[in-house]
Amino acid sequence: MSKKGRHGTRAGGFTRGKKTREAIIDCAMHIAASESLGAISIGRLAKELKITKSGLFIHFGSKEKLEEAVVTRASEIFFGHVLGPAEDEVKAGMERLWALCDSWLQFVEDRVLPGGYFFTGAFFISAEQHSFIAQRIREVAHEWVNALRKAVDEGRHRLELQIDVNARRTAFELNSLLLGAQWSRLLDHSDHSKAHLAILAKLKSLATEKIPSDVFDSVTAWRHYLDNRDS
Amino acid sequence: MSKKGRHGTRAGGFTRGKKTREAIIDCAMHIAASESLGAISIGRLAKELKITKSGLFIHFGSKEKLEEAVVTRASEIFFGHVLGPAEDEVKAGMERLWALCDSWLQFVEDRVLPGGYFFTGAFFISAEQHSFIAQRIREVAHEWVNALRKAVDEGRHRLELQIDVNARRTAFELNSLLLGAQWSRLLDHSDHSKAHLAILAKLKSLATEKIPSDVFDSVTAWRHYLDNRDS
Repeated sequence: MSKKGRHGTRAGGFTRGKKTREAIIDCAMHIAASESLGAISIGRLAKELKITKSGLFIHFGSKEKLEEAVVTRASEIFFGHVLGPAEDEVKAGMERLWALCDSWLQFVEDRVLPGGYFFTGAFFISAEQHSFIAQRIREVAHEWVNALRKAVDEGRHRLELQIDVNARRTAFELNSLLLGAQWSRLLDHSDHSKAHLAILAKLKSLATEKIPSDVFDSVTAWRHYLDNRDS
Repeated sequence: MSKKGRHGTRAGGFTRGKKTREAIIDCAMHIAASESLGAISIGRLAKELKITKSGLFIHFGSKEKLEEAVVTRASEIFFGHVLGPAEDEVKAGMERLWALCDSWLQFVEDRVLPGGYFFTGAFFISAEQHSFIAQRIREVAHEWVNALRKAVDEGRHRLELQIDVNARRTAFELNSLLLGAQWSRLLDHSDHSKAHLAILAKLKSLATEKIPSDVFDSVTAWRHYLDNRDS
């Protein structure tokens, strides 16, 4: 019993420690999302989380390690909200391409990681740097653009997109519209309707006759088409 | 003569002081361009410029004042290279719209302010903040997007662009392509050819019959058209 008790205490301590660690990452991630990784300070975190500075150091050892943990957590959230849902096996080709763009816009709109830092601002700032963090952020950008290209190719093979559609160019144009949508939203709180319409116009211009052209006329028409095309 | 001498010394001191101030701003601006304003530190500047920390403080009093001077200088450079040339009175409408986009791409390509911070990264990070600096960066973004919109409207009035072209939507799409071009360049050093072609395709889709449609087929054809259309 005494063993069990000790074990219980240890496990409890471990769980509490893990919880504190998670809370620190979460708090730091929200500071970074709105203000950049540079805005994270041990003093500020200690104050916001009501723990001592030495208590913080037990969990990360250095500010750099904490920043790495924040970027890793932010990537997991990005993949979970944006790439994950689009990788659903039910989706393929043009539907997947749309899902990638739509989830990206939804991610911004829902302020999952509020502000413009993750991963747009962070990417623009760190792209020419050589730290672990900069490298991780570039990896996220690469995975993202590769997912777009792959979905374009899949759309071509499924004969939904014209056979001569250039995957790199299309991925570039769609990614541009998403960056522009986030930019506009940050500038004047504009909604994503301009981006949605521009994405549909782009898809329409590249689609084969397999897809009726009027389904690209509005987001509602397009979603209705996707929901009903197999029935 | 002694008065003249004193005056001469004072003026010399003033000039030297101004030169040092300029050198500090310049050095800090290049650090910020590649790494963000947060990367500027008094210690680093003192080391790079081989002056004392107290010597630096004489010129700015606080790091915040120095950051403000850096953002002001960077805006002047952005306007001088991008908005200024496009505001040339000889240009108007579609030519001005093209000049705005082309100068923006050239600004990135020439690494006038190297890296991705000014003003893209800086904007994405600071758009939801309330400091003087964040406000100044938003002003640059507003002036930029307004210049694009105004050039679209001018193109409509000159009957170069179709009368029902939406200036906000067109400015959004062109700005998106520019952001995407900078993003791609930072990711894999790709050139701006995808962006140039996408911009020309966009202009072609909005142009009236006043402009021969084959001039949008390549950057060379378009530049040749602009250079010769009045002759």
